[in-house]
Amino acid sequence: MMKPGAIWLEGPGCWEGLRTWLEDRDPDGVFVLTDTHTARACLPVLDQRLGRDRAVLTIPAGEKGKTVETASLLWQALANAGAGRGSVLLNLGGGVVTDLGGFVASTYMRGISFVHIPTSLLAQVDAAIGGKNGIDVGHVKNLAGIFREPDVLLIDPIFLETLPQQEWHNGLAEVAKHALIADPDLWRALEGLEHPRDISQRLLSAAVAVKRMIVAEDPGESGLRKVLNFGHTVGHALESMALAFGQEWPHGEAVAAGMQVEAWLSKKLCGLPAAEEARIRIFLQRFFPDRPVPDPESCLSYIRKDKKNRGGVIRMALLQSIGKAIPVVEVPGDLVLAAMKECLGETEPRG
Amino acid sequence: MMKPGAIWLEGPGCWEGLRTWLEDRDPDGVFVLTDTHTARACLPVLDQRLGRDRAVLTIPAGEKGKTVETASLLWQALANAGAGRGSVLLNLGGGVVTDLGGFVASTYMRGISFVHIPTSLLAQVDAAIGGKNGIDVGHVKNLAGIFREPDVLLIDPIFLETLPQQEWHNGLAEVAKHALIADPDLWRALEGLEHPRDISQRLLSAAVAVKRMIVAEDPGESGLRKVLNFGHTVGHALESMALAFGQEWPHGEAVAAGMQVEAWLSKKLCGLPAAEEARIRIFLQRFFPDRPVPDPESCLSYIRKDKKNRGGVIRMALLQSIGKAIPVVEVPGDLVLAAMKECLGETEPRG
Repeated sequence: MMKPGAIWLEGPGCWEGLRTWLEDRDPDGVFVLTDTHTARACLPVLDQRLGRDRAVLTIPAGEKGKTVETASLLWQALANAGAGRGSVLLNLGGGVVTDLGGFVASTYMRGISFVHIPTSLLAQVDAAIGGKNGIDVGHVKNLAGIFREPDVLLIDPIFLETLPQQEWHNGLAEVAKHALIADPDLWRALEGLEHPRDISQRLLSAAVAVKRMIVAEDPGESGLRKVLNFGHTVGHALESMALAFGQEWPHGEAVAAGMQVEAWLSKKLCGLPAAEEARIRIFLQRFFPDRPVPDPESCLSYIRKDKKNRGGVIRMALLQSIGKAIPVVEVPGDLVLAAMKECLGETEPRG
Repeated sequence: MMKPGAIWLEGPGCWEGLRTWLEDRDPDGVFVLTDTHTARACLPVLDQRLGRDRAVLTIPAGEKGKTVETASLLWQALANAGAGRGSVLLNLGGGVVTDLGGFVASTYMRGISFVHIPTSLLAQVDAAIGGKNGIDVGHVKNLAGIFREPDVLLIDPIFLETLPQQEWHNGLAEVAKHALIADPDLWRALEGLEHPRDISQRLLSAAVAVKRMIVAEDPGESGLRKVLNFGHTVGHALESMALAFGQEWPHGEAVAAGMQVEAWLSKKLCGLPAAEEARIRIFLQRFFPDRPVPDPESCLSYIRKDKKNRGGVIRMALLQSIGKAIPVVEVPGDLVLAAMKECLGETEPRG
């Protein structure tokens, strides 16, 4: 199901690489998907670097743009603009744009070529890497989607310069996750950070390398890759629940909360040392605000719908230690409930 | 993008084969997709043969069920029924059910296993074979979809016994197409038919063999497979146009009309002998009613949106002779218009 080896473009020659690829491909149409933010902040940069005709499709910024209704409008917009099987879609934006654009391109006329140009920290270190794309359906995140790598992935830190505060935090959560599951040195460096914006190019590259390495070893998510779900089983449930109430819980905050809950579970089930669990909690509480969960029981019902579950049993990726994760651990529902009550929105001291 | 070798089940042992496959797979849920017709006419047969628990999802019968809105409802219905990544979807029905069910399963949680059990002549000889699935979006047929083979394809002629008249004609059009593009012996046999219902098991198998052979040689539709589009460039446009007017032009009739137009174009552009074009026309007019096209210009605009086109040029599969097709022929728009005026809904004698 995976395309063999997307072209990876980073560093000084990256735009030259994209221009050459487009010339070789000679597409019968070039379309750019942006959201209302990246249309303003990033499209001028792309146009300057690309120097060729393109049509632009723009969706509203935010997770609410990643729906089946938006996908349907984009399929129709492509058709109305005359996009054919030989057209190319450039996805210029954060994780919503790359997830949605990857899905729309993979399914438009049964699949056209697409390029990811992630513009947020989160998308550059995580969302745009690994061929997962998808849309939210009826308040369930990523309920529909397929695995497909972009033809080209271009990472240029220039886009991070315009990033709002919130987006740095969103990305930091994923950088921290990559450290926790596979890179203790990166973790120690993160613990010394003053502000997410201080993440150096070297730390960024380390975080990207974790994701690339894991995805390359297990493109179809049959085993090892599941470690990337650390923090996300609970995190996704929190996001889905917020969506159902018409709100948005920023992905980084949701994953940070999820990592707190799942670190606590790791301590209970996988021998994560209490001192390491405390370091994780202190780090996350320093960068991410406490936000109580209105209804842990309802959150549990979302967790029970998670894609990783089998036969009604909840399964999570948990930590053995900082830098070492276990891909699949079965977790009893009542323990998940206890963990949420323990870690999210409690005012008593934690055990 | 194609799954290597779906399991192919035909003949006496086919249900035993499916039962064994399901036992080996040990799915965490078995779901059956039917439409309102097959829920009544075919589900009891399936239940008797299958002998195991299953949940049933039913869509309205007819092309109007094959929409993004229905896909969205099915994704949600699967989620609400607790379907996980280890669940299996059995698509029990005609081309609409297999196209839609294949798409929904291929994208549900980024892809679950699915089985096609085609119940109409058209689906058995054509729609269910070859891994094409998709949905109509905004009146454009199959605008979204992906290539993916079912895990298992089961063909049992028992389902044809309950088939209404119209469905025999729908299937006959595809059987005729397979004959015209690759099997002159099959074509001669069809010319001797009294009624579509008289198609023997031997002729059915010949038609299936044409499709299997072509798909096996070119699973991704990069070349040879395009011959299967004979009659379909114009046929799909007629269907899309009808859909836009809130009507339904049965697929077989649309393809039969499309084959008349494209045989005429084959005579003009590819040297199809006039006598063979006449035989094709006589056969099609004997089995399919004449139905005038209200607006050939509008039909042409739908043809221009066809997935096969590149750079605005219309491309069709045409015939060199009965039994021999050319995968891609560029056709000028004004000649297409002339062909439609010549072949569809004209009362003057034809040239």
